[in-house]
Amino acid sequence: MKNTSYQNFRTLMAEQRTLRIAGVHDGLGGRLAEAAGFDAVWSSSFEVSAARALPDASLLSMSEYLDAAAHIQSAIGIPVVADCDTGYGNNLNVAHMVHRYERAGITAVAIEDKHHPKMNSFADASHELLSVNDFCEKIDTAKRAQGSEDFYVIARTEAMIAGLGVNEALERCAAYVDAGADAVLAHSKSKSRGEIEAFLAGWDDRAPVVIVPTTYPDWQFEAMDAAGVSAVIYANQGLRSSIRALEDTFSRILGEGSSQSLEADIASVQRVFDLQDLAEWQDLIRS
Amino acid sequence: MKNTSYQNFRTLMAEQRTLRIAGVHDGLGGRLAEAAGFDAVWSSSFEVSAARALPDASLLSMSEYLDAAAHIQSAIGIPVVADCDTGYGNNLNVAHMVHRYERAGITAVAIEDKHHPKMNSFADASHELLSVNDFCEKIDTAKRAQGSEDFYVIARTEAMIAGLGVNEALERCAAYVDAGADAVLAHSKSKSRGEIEAFLAGWDDRAPVVIVPTTYPDWQFEAMDAAGVSAVIYANQGLRSSIRALEDTFSRILGEGSSQSLEADIASVQRVFDLQDLAEWQDLIRS
Amino acid sequence: MKNTSYQNFRTLMAEQRTLRIAGVHDGLGGRLAEAAGFDAVWSSSFEVSAARALPDASLLSMSEYLDAAAHIQSAIGIPVVADCDTGYGNNLNVAHMVHRYERAGITAVAIEDKHHPKMNSFADASHELLSVNDFCEKIDTAKRAQGSEDFYVIARTEAMIAGLGVNEALERCAAYVDAGADAVLAHSKSKSRGEIEAFLAGWDDRAPVVIVPTTYPDWQFEAMDAAGVSAVIYANQGLRSSIRALEDTFSRILGEGSSQSLEADIASVQRVFDLQDLAEWQDLIRS
Amino acid sequence: MKNTSYQNFRTLMAEQRTLRIAGVHDGLGGRLAEAAGFDAVWSSSFEVSAARALPDASLLSMSEYLDAAAHIQSAIGIPVVADCDTGYGNNLNVAHMVHRYERAGITAVAIEDKHHPKMNSFADASHELLSVNDFCEKIDTAKRAQGSEDFYVIARTEAMIAGLGVNEALERCAAYVDAGADAVLAHSKSKSRGEIEAFLAGWDDRAPVVIVPTTYPDWQFEAMDAAGVSAVIYANQGLRSSIRALEDTFSRILGEGSSQSLEADIASVQRVFDLQDLAEWQDLIRS
Repeated sequence: MKNTSYQNFRTLMAEQRTLRIAGVHDGLGGRLAEAAGFDAVWSSSFEVSAARALPDASLLSMSEYLDAAAHIQSAIGIPVVADCDTGYGNNLNVAHMVHRYERAGITAVAIEDKHHPKMNSFADASHELLSVNDFCEKIDTAKRAQGSEDFYVIARTEAMIAGLGVNEALERCAAYVDAGADAVLAHSKSKSRGEIEAFLAGWDDRAPVVIVPTTYPDWQFEAMDAAGVSAVIYANQGLRSSIRALEDTFSRILGEGSSQSLEADIASVQRVFDLQDLAEWQDLIRS
Repeated sequence: MKNTSYQNFRTLMAEQRTLRIAGVHDGLGGRLAEAAGFDAVWSSSFEVSAARALPDASLLSMSEYLDAAAHIQSAIGIPVVADCDTGYGNNLNVAHMVHRYERAGITAVAIEDKHHPKMNSFADASHELLSVNDFCEKIDTAKRAQGSEDFYVIARTEAMIAGLGVNEALERCAAYVDAGADAVLAHSKSKSRGEIEAFLAGWDDRAPVVIVPTTYPDWQFEAMDAAGVSAVIYANQGLRSSIRALEDTFSRILGEGSSQSLEADIASVQRVFDLQDLAEWQDLIRS
Repeated sequence: MKNTSYQNFRTLMAEQRTLRIAGVHDGLGGRLAEAAGFDAVWSSSFEVSAARALPDASLLSMSEYLDAAAHIQSAIGIPVVADCDTGYGNNLNVAHMVHRYERAGITAVAIEDKHHPKMNSFADASHELLSVNDFCEKIDTAKRAQGSEDFYVIARTEAMIAGLGVNEALERCAAYVDAGADAVLAHSKSKSRGEIEAFLAGWDDRAPVVIVPTTYPDWQFEAMDAAGVSAVIYANQGLRSSIRALEDTFSRILGEGSSQSLEADIASVQRVFDLQDLAEWQDLIRS
Repeated sequence: MKNTSYQNFRTLMAEQRTLRIAGVHDGLGGRLAEAAGFDAVWSSSFEVSAARALPDASLLSMSEYLDAAAHIQSAIGIPVVADCDTGYGNNLNVAHMVHRYERAGITAVAIEDKHHPKMNSFADASHELLSVNDFCEKIDTAKRAQGSEDFYVIARTEAMIAGLGVNEALERCAAYVDAGADAVLAHSKSKSRGEIEAFLAGWDDRAPVVIVPTTYPDWQFEAMDAAGVSAVIYANQGLRSSIRALEDTFSRILGEGSSQSLEADIASVQRVFDLQDLAEWQDLIRS
């Protein structure tokens, strides 16, 4: 049954260990990530938009992304870190976004320094950045807009995604922390971890660093931890495994003419009931 | 990119072959079912509620189920058959439901003869039925509420689920067709196909029969076809395979300390882009 | 600009004065009620459904009523009391409703002892009540479902609406308080205040009493206060005045061939800007 | 009861008379505008955002504005013209917007040549315009994205709002028609009708012209008609009259200590029932 309480992301970050965060797009994914032992979940714009068969290009609206994040948080006791793209527009949109996410019970958001509307970081596209000053204003706006001290704002730089290099990323992140960011997310699409290692080597630890190793998946967690990473987001592997599972399941049903052979390979109906807390809900039906 | 047109379920049923329908809960699932070759999709209440980590017990609201169905339809060219549970209340709710589903572009709905709020058919619960007359009123209300001739209403009997037997199911389905139902859905949770075979043997073919072989998955499609089934819904295997995939993926990431070994087993980021029609969308960015 | 904090209804009720509550259906109405000096607002199902041109008959869904209540609360610093009709179904629906309303920041809800789906109390219809025991279970379920001590549940009896008399209303309300209700709402559609006066005279003050004097509008606030009323809801006068205003405005524009003469009688565009806190929002656009 | 059909805006425009369109923000407003005799309604962003007590500054999301427009259309038989601001972003957002509005049954939209996020035209702000080419791309994108021939796209220029003068407005509108716009909306905030008269005098009639005489309300309908206006939108008088009505109603209740004296000045509960089509809905409750 729905948890009546959940952890605050700020409290979790204060534990001073490297957090493992799973990308998800719905409450069920959140619950499975929590059951597996992840510390938090990332309500991924890439996953949420893919679930709608739309590109991760600011097509879904803020209210749609918020609904996804809020529904995920409703299902779990670990915190949601909401992927809020660019903050959905200008300073006014950022303030409104913070108001709404905080009201909906989200305790951490990440905003990035690209122009709105944005395009997914891994897409072959130009990724033009806001000026440092303009993005610092967004961070400052977000921090002023929050109602509680606990709300947590992660500033994400796309400098390395845009091909501007490690130094630009470092300079930007330093400015973002000065502007009030609680942590930075240094995003890289390099095929090797070298770029992020260079970033971490150059970082002066004035705020925690979050990474998303989608393109350098071979980096071991212990090594990231040793290198100074505060949180790692496995941002979309869940979605990608679901796609493979659905492809396999649907083609087997049609190819084999029945779902019989699948039964051994898929969760039981009872397992679904358990994930829905059915027994606990049924206890509410009284004599 | 989003399809600008899609098939009408009535037109599809007129093809006089046994249709294969896949249960899904979001646009991505719909797109994968379509790609695999299914004729239509079932926006399953069981799946949609499970995706929210809530039981299939009329907890999500009509507008939430409608949003799911409409988002699925937006992503595909094959028709959605919307699982509308009990019609979400009384006759007034049924009329309002038809107005809204039809407006949203859904061409077929199924309503069932249980009391509202309902409990999932496979749950260990009493499944009390409406009187035949009351449910016939709902069907008649639905048919009068539709604005176009094409809208298609499937009447689902839970008589066998409720333990009332094949004859009760047959009598109810006959009455439902007399009341205007375009097809019937005879639901069984028997571990063998015998119950449904008996139903089909006793049915006088005055309307198409839809089945959901979740508990008798060994029945081959060709045999169903020969037995007189007009459409078969593989209602929840997709969800159940996704759960298994997420369990596996999340535990491997944590257990192995990286997502490296997963790369061979999951869809690529490029595959996700393709499912999002990213290239087609990017063509809209002009010089 | 959006308030970052607002009063809790329980705290307000603890002030031990008779509260005045205005029925509204959107954030603007909430803001105008707050500006006028009301203590709280009632997110009226009658108003919210009328704004959609639909009857107050459980046609809009829980999530739609919740959205309305949450949007109102977002706009004001006084608390929203959410009109939650029957709790939207059975015990499970009540628990889910409490989870969602509380998560969305609503601090008080009212549920009533009619069957779901319900019909508006003033409509010419049979108003069949739940058994006392069944409704007590709903109240108990609601109280167990709440996550914070502050959440406030008002039990509303429709006994007088259903023609069952004052004594039935008194007995039911006593049972509802025993089941955990924080207050009772005694609803009457009598053309005179006599029925409610009789209720108040017979009530033993074990919990606060809320009334809705739609059909006995001549009762003065001071007299209600003296009679033991804890809160009075002016539930729909705002909506009804807006309807009259729109009728007048639209017919004048068409009849006079311009909106010129209206200018003296309607709010200025600047007044709308002020209600939108435009200047405060514009301050977020920096150099 | 909900209309099962409604007029297409293109068909209405083909009637070759000057249309009168009322700004509204909900289904009830739509129904009252229809009852008064308006030809169509404008789902005004200014009104919809004001109803949420938020500025008209692209804070509400596309999906929220769409919901408002769709709910209005559901309640009426005359067409909704949806105020779609800038199209909610870039070309991709425009295409997605057209897909979604058309799917939801909206037959006409208006987009404007300001940057996204926008600020209300009457607000004291800089109103920077897109280049002609960029906005022509949006129009072309919108027209290519539509699925039916009937969908109608109005191109709105803010050139006069931005202080660029009548000639710039004329040049832009000509280019917009060349790019595929079905009509143009020439917006002015001049206190006199002179600016629009100059625009109309200079316009070569290659497409219909829509105007919004908020700041020049003294222009008579017959005179507009003679000057070549194809449609006039009375965009926000309804909202402004509702605000005045609510202010008056709320202050009278508190000041007079009862709602008694209001009864003569506001719509009756029965009038609300009639606007909800209650009797027609109640007919669905059978013996």
